[in-house]
Amino acid sequence: MSGLPEQRRARVAKRMWQGQRALVDAFEAMDGSGQFRAHTWERPGGGGGTARVLVGGDVFEKAGVNVSEVTGDAVPEALAGPRPELAGRGFYATGVSMVLHPRNPHVPAFHANFRYFEVDGGEFWWFGGGADMTPAYAYAEDAQHFHSSLRDWCDRHDSAWYARFKNWCDKYFYVTHRGEMRGVGGVFFDDLKLEGEDGWERAFAFVDEGITTLEMAYLPVVARRKAMPWTEAERAWQLHRRSRYAEFNLLYDRGTRFGLETDGNVEAILMSMPPLARWDFDLHPEPGSHEAETLAMLQPREWAS
Amino acid sequence: MSGLPEQRRARVAKRMWQGQRALVDAFEAMDGSGQFRAHTWERPGGGGGTARVLVGGDVFEKAGVNVSEVTGDAVPEALAGPRPELAGRGFYATGVSMVLHPRNPHVPAFHANFRYFEVDGGEFWWFGGGADMTPAYAYAEDAQHFHSSLRDWCDRHDSAWYARFKNWCDKYFYVTHRGEMRGVGGVFFDDLKLEGEDGWERAFAFVDEGITTLEMAYLPVVARRKAMPWTEAERAWQLHRRSRYAEFNLLYDRGTRFGLETDGNVEAILMSMPPLARWDFDLHPEPGSHEAETLAMLQPREWAS
Repeated sequence: MSGLPEQRRARVAKRMWQGQRALVDAFEAMDGSGQFRAHTWERPGGGGGTARVLVGGDVFEKAGVNVSEVTGDAVPEALAGPRPELAGRGFYATGVSMVLHPRNPHVPAFHANFRYFEVDGGEFWWFGGGADMTPAYAYAEDAQHFHSSLRDWCDRHDSAWYARFKNWCDKYFYVTHRGEMRGVGGVFFDDLKLEGEDGWERAFAFVDEGITTLEMAYLPVVARRKAMPWTEAERAWQLHRRSRYAEFNLLYDRGTRFGLETDGNVEAILMSMPPLARWDFDLHPEPGSHEAETLAMLQPREWAS
Repeated sequence: MSGLPEQRRARVAKRMWQGQRALVDAFEAMDGSGQFRAHTWERPGGGGGTARVLVGGDVFEKAGVNVSEVTGDAVPEALAGPRPELAGRGFYATGVSMVLHPRNPHVPAFHANFRYFEVDGGEFWWFGGGADMTPAYAYAEDAQHFHSSLRDWCDRHDSAWYARFKNWCDKYFYVTHRGEMRGVGGVFFDDLKLEGEDGWERAFAFVDEGITTLEMAYLPVVARRKAMPWTEAERAWQLHRRSRYAEFNLLYDRGTRFGLETDGNVEAILMSMPPLARWDFDLHPEPGSHEAETLAMLQPREWAS
């Protein structure tokens, strides 16, 4: 048995809050200087959360880890529209999400989130989540390490999942008008509901371990790059690339739009935005440069080794 | 008589190109240092345009004036959706649009555009346009001058238009999730089609004079502010405010979304984005500061005097 719905919620929420604590500690340790500060917020419609935000660290120019627990009388239209059986029913949602924008142009930005949704005390439930990495200067070995870590985690649960969730990520984090991915991808999944008596437990175990996997997927890359020297020209390129990150988040990201349209906490939602970004007109890097090589890497590719 | 449809198109397009030339000259003269460079582009579906862009001037950190002339076999879905009588019919569209991002935080940013749309050789036609100003540090006298100039122009054509188009602008340039206007507004109109034999001529005369009005509405404000000293803290606030400009353009602006969804020229469309913008977490200016006063001015208000 997977326990009563109330126990399920409590177990997932506990894991989200624990995950936030552990990740904040790990990110602070990696930064060595910056400190996360807590910003607690309430949602007018029910529930709330705590955003922990680090600004102006040595390694992380801006980093945020947000946990939310939200309840409501009626499933939001954006979710109930395509699933009329959910309309007008009470819901509970919890999640942890994080975005890290490093200062050094050679350290990639990182985004991950895990979320859980329940309708009417657990009659319907599903998990979602994912993690992806966005370098300004891409290094193949970083993308390989990142994807291999995610693949190993997925493979321990279902051998079909990595390929499926990696493709989903490639498609989701795509900046259509630029014809490029936001970064080197990762995994993305939604509507994860497993059949069978232990379906809930198996899905939760996957997410539980996913949260643990984030540190080992991303932080070794940070450790490898954070002391690399960089020039003002490289910094300018990083700020230029961050404009694409901003474009993706505001034009395409369903989580951002959903949050803003359902009166979510604006600061917690837009915590994901880059601390500084620049829009250059019609910028094209020189063929053969690291900048041009990076652009070439922003297309779907098999990275896990 | 208003002339044959072909002559109408030619007259409007000529005015758009002339307007670009005159405005580019006026902006270069005001800048005193920066030069506009021309970037010509073609639209795969038919037509094209020329974006004239100034980067890194003394007064204007980034300025762009774009003219487009576009034709197609079928009215784009975004326009034909609400007007089924237009579906599947050939169209012609031309317009001039401009965005100026000044370097000095005391000089407001400026946006304006005028556009003309024709279906099936002129059976349906309408004009649209508008101008609005976005200060990082708002000055009431600047908003008064700007609005009064626009009101005088509107009043010469129809005494009801300024109030109507000013309210339209207040509603259109509204950053819903922030609960504030993008700037101090201006005027905005669309679907302007006048009845009667001279309806087309009267509408064109309004737009024709609107293009001329832009210089006298905006440039005196630039002249008044451009030599004001500014601090690094004021510059940071300007970059912070530019994040709201970016949010509006990518989340709400129908022109931007329409352009990107109909395979418009990405660089010409996103010419409007700020050269540099920063996202601060949960920033609240001190009560009574000029920053706080500016926020208070970003609500609908009667400015024309």
